Amino acid sequence: MSRTVYVNGTYKDYGDALIHVEDRGYQFADGVYEVFSVSNRKIIDYKGHINRLKRSLNEIKITCPINEKAILFHIRNIINKNLIIDGIIYLQITRGVAERDFKFPQNVKSSIVIIGKSIPTHIYEEAFKKGINVIITDDLRWKRVDIKSLNLLAPVLAKQSAFERKSQEAWLVDENGFITEGSSSNAWILKNKTLLTRPVSNSILNGITRKSFIKGLLKNGYKLKEKKFNLTDIRKSEEAYITSATQYVMPVVKINGKKIGNGKVGKFAKIFRDIYMESVQLNG
Amino acid sequence: MSRTVYVNGTYKDYGDALIHVEDRGYQFADGVYEVFSVSNRKIIDYKGHINRLKRSLNEIKITCPINEKAILFHIRNIINKNLIIDGIIYLQITRGVAERDFKFPQNVKSSIVIIGKSIPTHIYEEAFKKGINVIITDDLRWKRVDIKSLNLLAPVLAKQSAFERKSQEAWLVDENGFITEGSSSNAWILKNKTLLTRPVSNSILNGITRKSFIKGLLKNGYKLKEKKFNLTDIRKSEEAYITSATQYVMPVVKINGKKIGNGKVGKFAKIFRDIYMESVQLNG
Repeated sequence: MSRTVYVNGTYKDYGDALIHVEDRGYQFADGVYEVFSVSNRKIIDYKGHINRLKRSLNEIKITCPINEKAILFHIRNIINKNLIIDGIIYLQITRGVAERDFKFPQNVKSSIVIIGKSIPTHIYEEAFKKGINVIITDDLRWKRVDIKSLNLLAPVLAKQSAFERKSQEAWLVDENGFITEGSSSNAWILKNKTLLTRPVSNSILNGITRKSFIKGLLKNGYKLKEKKFNLTDIRKSEEAYITSATQYVMPVVKINGKKIGNGKVGKFAKIFRDIYMESVQLNG
Repeated sequence: MSRTVYVNGTYKDYGDALIHVEDRGYQFADGVYEVFSVSNRKIIDYKGHINRLKRSLNEIKITCPINEKAILFHIRNIINKNLIIDGIIYLQITRGVAERDFKFPQNVKSSIVIIGKSIPTHIYEEAFKKGINVIITDDLRWKRVDIKSLNLLAPVLAKQSAFERKSQEAWLVDENGFITEGSSSNAWILKNKTLLTRPVSNSILNGITRKSFIKGLLKNGYKLKEKKFNLTDIRKSEEAYITSATQYVMPVVKINGKKIGNGKVGKFAKIFRDIYMESVQLNG
């Protein structure tokens, strides 16, 4: 089946989904994006993602090319046209097409692309059962990673390093030895029966999954501290996790080749994943 | 006249110069570029730019899609087809088109785009006569700006800030108060009759213009120090400049609203620009 992609007002076959070479997303990473998880045809935490998208756009002064109602309409169409039951929606907005010049162009309409992809749930379930390996690498990213922008070369290189070391994610470490977050996820450890994750700032992305997970943890009375942690804390941790829109709560079993706990998926992993899933909003 | 753009092996009219929405340059800033200045149909310091391109590609492990001979052939074609006498060539190479995933795709051919643009020399000459204004702003870029990559959102925002403050360039300042470089140029001050510019490291782009300028300065016996400088040094400077492939040596007359020297183009500006122009290699 040919996939359908939404590009600036029209639906295109995947192979015909094209943008101009002088789209500023292509020349300057001048744009932002969101990834929505689709579970049983429902979008997880839609409102949270849309609000973050609006914030990202606002931070770099891009005007959304279509209104919120239209965004939801087109996302639903992409889910339907591509027969997505479980999967993801990738939505990207850039500053538009203009003769190359660093400063913002005048009177240029921003570009929008929406891509859908089916991902059978067993892929997540199998990864969850095994847990993932994580490496630690320097955080080389720019200083506004709170904006979910296309400025992603540093995370690309970090993820590739992880892959080359038989790992699925890289945790990024700042100049003071503290973990900021994963290359495309937030980072968590369970230490002395308390969950630790870095507080929100310009140094991490304010994860929508992170937010719903925290809400669920608090509701269920689990101990949680938004506090920086370093390699020493990791060594002493009982369990570890990443959270993201596509990975939900995913257990980490090895960090830099060393086992977390006994190197198996910890006993809280399923509990925490369920707490997260119960905490999300499903927009029918 | 319709402009012609080279895109992955074919020549396209400007309006038809398209790439796929899942080109990694569009989703991840996963690519590198060069800007070549064309002066009287000759490419300035071609070899220097090509060598830097090769270095950038190598640093992020992208294989060039065509060989060096082919690159030069297509650049010349773009110059000829677009009747460029004076202007620029923009060349961009990305990791290619693949289903979105942070880690490198396997067996994917990289993408190449070459765009030419005429810029009449009087534009440069008029800017040179007036000199430019510069603002100072935080360096928010990632930590590998020695790679000439598409990870350019921070320079875009810096240049826009400059523009909004009636200035043409932004000098970026590191955590210790030292200028790294301009958002798309290297930064220089003349202080106590000595030219100062930041030494090459991961914190600046190793400018091809910078290199030729230095060669010319040394050949002509001018005093030069590759040394960090800060706002205090700027206040005490007699003249200031930026260098880049498109700006050559361009005098700076105001920084953060304060005059450099008497606020007019300094007496060494023309001397230095001429020294640079005599120092470059013109590939006929």
